[in-house]
Amino acid sequence: MEPELPLVDHHCHSVVRRDLDRHAFEALLTEAPEPGTLGGSLFDSRIGLAVRRWCAPVLDLETHAPADEYLRRRTELGHTEVGRRFLGAAGLSALLVDTGFEPEPLLGLADLGALADAPAHEIVRLEQVAEQVLADGVSAAGFAASFRDRLAARTENAVGVKSVAAYRTGLDLAPERPSPAEVTAAAGRFLRAGQGRVADEVLHRFAIWCGVDLGLPVQFHIGLGDPDLNLRDADPLLLMPLLRALQPTGIPLLLLHNYPFHREAGYLAQVFGTVFVDIGLAAHNLGDRAGALLAELTELAPFGKVLYSSDAFGLPELYFLAATLFRRALDEVLTGGVEAGSWTEADAGRFRRMVAGDNARRVYFTS
Amino acid sequence: MEPELPLVDHHCHSVVRRDLDRHAFEALLTEAPEPGTLGGSLFDSRIGLAVRRWCAPVLDLETHAPADEYLRRRTELGHTEVGRRFLGAAGLSALLVDTGFEPEPLLGLADLGALADAPAHEIVRLEQVAEQVLADGVSAAGFAASFRDRLAARTENAVGVKSVAAYRTGLDLAPERPSPAEVTAAAGRFLRAGQGRVADEVLHRFAIWCGVDLGLPVQFHIGLGDPDLNLRDADPLLLMPLLRALQPTGIPLLLLHNYPFHREAGYLAQVFGTVFVDIGLAAHNLGDRAGALLAELTELAPFGKVLYSSDAFGLPELYFLAATLFRRALDEVLTGGVEAGSWTEADAGRFRRMVAGDNARRVYFTS
Amino acid sequence: MEPELPLVDHHCHSVVRRDLDRHAFEALLTEAPEPGTLGGSLFDSRIGLAVRRWCAPVLDLETHAPADEYLRRRTELGHTEVGRRFLGAAGLSALLVDTGFEPEPLLGLADLGALADAPAHEIVRLEQVAEQVLADGVSAAGFAASFRDRLAARTENAVGVKSVAAYRTGLDLAPERPSPAEVTAAAGRFLRAGQGRVADEVLHRFAIWCGVDLGLPVQFHIGLGDPDLNLRDADPLLLMPLLRALQPTGIPLLLLHNYPFHREAGYLAQVFGTVFVDIGLAAHNLGDRAGALLAELTELAPFGKVLYSSDAFGLPELYFLAATLFRRALDEVLTGGVEAGSWTEADAGRFRRMVAGDNARRVYFTS
Repeated sequence: MEPELPLVDHHCHSVVRRDLDRHAFEALLTEAPEPGTLGGSLFDSRIGLAVRRWCAPVLDLETHAPADEYLRRRTELGHTEVGRRFLGAAGLSALLVDTGFEPEPLLGLADLGALADAPAHEIVRLEQVAEQVLADGVSAAGFAASFRDRLAARTENAVGVKSVAAYRTGLDLAPERPSPAEVTAAAGRFLRAGQGRVADEVLHRFAIWCGVDLGLPVQFHIGLGDPDLNLRDADPLLLMPLLRALQPTGIPLLLLHNYPFHREAGYLAQVFGTVFVDIGLAAHNLGDRAGALLAELTELAPFGKVLYSSDAFGLPELYFLAATLFRRALDEVLTGGVEAGSWTEADAGRFRRMVAGDNARRVYFTS
Repeated sequence: MEPELPLVDHHCHSVVRRDLDRHAFEALLTEAPEPGTLGGSLFDSRIGLAVRRWCAPVLDLETHAPADEYLRRRTELGHTEVGRRFLGAAGLSALLVDTGFEPEPLLGLADLGALADAPAHEIVRLEQVAEQVLADGVSAAGFAASFRDRLAARTENAVGVKSVAAYRTGLDLAPERPSPAEVTAAAGRFLRAGQGRVADEVLHRFAIWCGVDLGLPVQFHIGLGDPDLNLRDADPLLLMPLLRALQPTGIPLLLLHNYPFHREAGYLAQVFGTVFVDIGLAAHNLGDRAGALLAELTELAPFGKVLYSSDAFGLPELYFLAATLFRRALDEVLTGGVEAGSWTEADAGRFRRMVAGDNARRVYFTS
Repeated sequence: MEPELPLVDHHCHSVVRRDLDRHAFEALLTEAPEPGTLGGSLFDSRIGLAVRRWCAPVLDLETHAPADEYLRRRTELGHTEVGRRFLGAAGLSALLVDTGFEPEPLLGLADLGALADAPAHEIVRLEQVAEQVLADGVSAAGFAASFRDRLAARTENAVGVKSVAAYRTGLDLAPERPSPAEVTAAAGRFLRAGQGRVADEVLHRFAIWCGVDLGLPVQFHIGLGDPDLNLRDADPLLLMPLLRALQPTGIPLLLLHNYPFHREAGYLAQVFGTVFVDIGLAAHNLGDRAGALLAELTELAPFGKVLYSSDAFGLPELYFLAATLFRRALDEVLTGGVEAGSWTEADAGRFRRMVAGDNARRVYFTS
């Protein structure tokens, strides 16, 4: 392991700007909307145990300090200092921040980057832009052009876009670019329904193709997330027809999270030249099993197709914890391979640099 | 490992009351309806090898005694003595017995409990009660009320109910409580069809809600079972809408077996406050891989949400084998975590007690 | 490990008859249609690393020689010598060759067998025969009888048949034998469409039943393959109704590849007496993770139901690499079990012989 290995976190969010009691902390720790009502404290799971192991010392506590002691110390230091410590200790060389989910005021990109002492770039959430265009008043027939314009403007300084179709309609998206008439009809349905949230197969698909047309890498939420999502609809294999159709564009397609479909995702990274994968969110949720997860992901995924992300949201701990666990996982896989005679130390070094940042730089900053 | 750690077996059946030749023994060993016709003796799989390793000494044989020798000794001792030895050696503190599957006369609950020297409580199978109500003569319109009454009577001394919807219609159940008109229509369909087996999405769902209304924990068959079941329809992710709808009731929902969807089940245990999981049936089928299975289950499932069950049916060996393999699996996971520095010895001891019995007692005996 | 343990490769193809540059080599190395366009060289994945580790010495290079050096040496030796070396070093006692996929001229069966110093038997691809019958001119009404005749003739010296329904319609096949009227209608659809490729649920099903009627073992493509296939449709659980319906025939049914659905396949091998499984194609793609894969497959699959195959196509390396990795995987599982006390050395030796060849001989040569 090289503790100093800087990581590009190619998908994260920002941190909350408030102190947290135990209930609020546990509510932000995982995708569970709140701590287990029947005794399933999340501190009694691998992620909570990993907080006690790895985060406690950053707050000057003993390794494995009890949860309540941890929370007391956290409050004592205050959220600003906590943020400073964990972002600073994460060892990031860049953050790519999805700004499309902000259920409460979060730290701005520049401030987040300052805490991490690394540049923070924006990833624009496609569905959010579509919802804003529709909310701002547009005719059904005018939606397509307005969306294209707005997306172009919003992404002027962004490095990629993201789709959360998995949460809305699921990933069973048709491959072809929808026709203008289909987009108009879908926008009309949305406007008539008068709801705030895009959840329409045509609109997700249209927005994805628009991102591709702008030459921007497209991130896809895949696999586990909060339980609003029907996890079965977030299987990356559902996306095969669209991924196939997008191959000729040469645009990088990034499958995020992926658990428990990470072997499926690894397969897609092997067979599709433009598909990349990560284990963000999953890695820190799995705690000391992150290495087992990365080993399974890389059964098929080439090391040139694997990226690092935290998918951290809200808690500063998660930027640090995800980075720490991922470095350990990467070392477990790569050093393990050297010890088993599967590859050389030089190979391991090269793969470490690729996964830590070179792959992300190639995807986001050289196209 | 603490060999003396008593376990609450929160889901099992009872034992057969006859001696068994090799064919009959193998037919009861797994979910295969009979031993492999083309040479796939089940003794040449992990479960059979685990019988030779762990069960042989209980019958005074050498560890790894050959299968035929094992069967001879078994016959020599007779099924009563065999039952006495294995149930006695299982180290159980309570048995929760699903009484709804009895293809041949089984030992009664009191006698089973006596063999195990532990109280045996009843779990009532919802579909069996529905089938009895319909068989006993009821009008379609009268079914709902009769079922409620019968279920209340049948569960007076029971500690939970169980649904086998996975075997019948699959787990793709709508979330909402069916309307009285829907229940009447479904009962009418059943009565007209004149078959003995409930396999109707509305009736499964109705029965589950009735169990919830009685305040009883609800067990769900999930994942592997006998090959009557289309395993694809037993994916716990199909149940997400219903699990979500049942959250506000606060009723414990127990996902049984789960293999090969145990990671999916672990996810559900993390994100839904009332969902609990086990690896019953799978653990003893996997033999020495039970630890790998438990490690995967607990990637996301908090230790406060994991229970022990054997799902033993027929063979006394299975109560002992499941308990032995589960204790080893639990020790592999928990001691492994201590050795890796993931948690403390004190944490491991607490998790051991939770999984072995505290979680089950909280679910079944304190609500 | 017994390096000398000869293997029956019960499913492979033949080798190409030309020299290959790096691009052409990588295009044949995995199921990816071509090397990653965005930097995902397949040499930077477990299969490529396994080539450098295991294949380089066979071409007189150092272990882990760089990819370009490997390709240079390969060209220097020429494809005939390369074929001679790798087939000779694979240690095969028989090859069962699927002759139904030949996108370019491949070595004939006799020549392939001569290189391997082992008999090469034929597996006939059902869909290819159907396509030939339809292409040769037949009426819709005459198709069924013509297909039966042609299949009987084509399989006179064959040892089995294979279906690629997974690639065409997916594995969601109805269980029952289609009626003559259904077959005629399906043939009519095919003839009217005027396309070359059978992709019709009725025709796949009909062809499978015809293979069964001839008493021939039936191989099924399952799980990973090239990305033409929608992997989700290649889940072996989709095949449960048909596997169930075929049980009474007693015909061996062989599920090939299976990754990432290998646990599901292992379940099917446990519960269905006539179902056999392998990890062909997957094992060499996973490189040093082949042992982990075999361990998961055999969680439920009895050792009497597991076969070896390479699914090698095109590259002589793959016959050798698959065999080498499988021997290591088998040793990892079996010796690991002995060391853990799970079974005896004698058991391990017996299982090794069963999996290496006895199971295949029983399936293909004694029925």
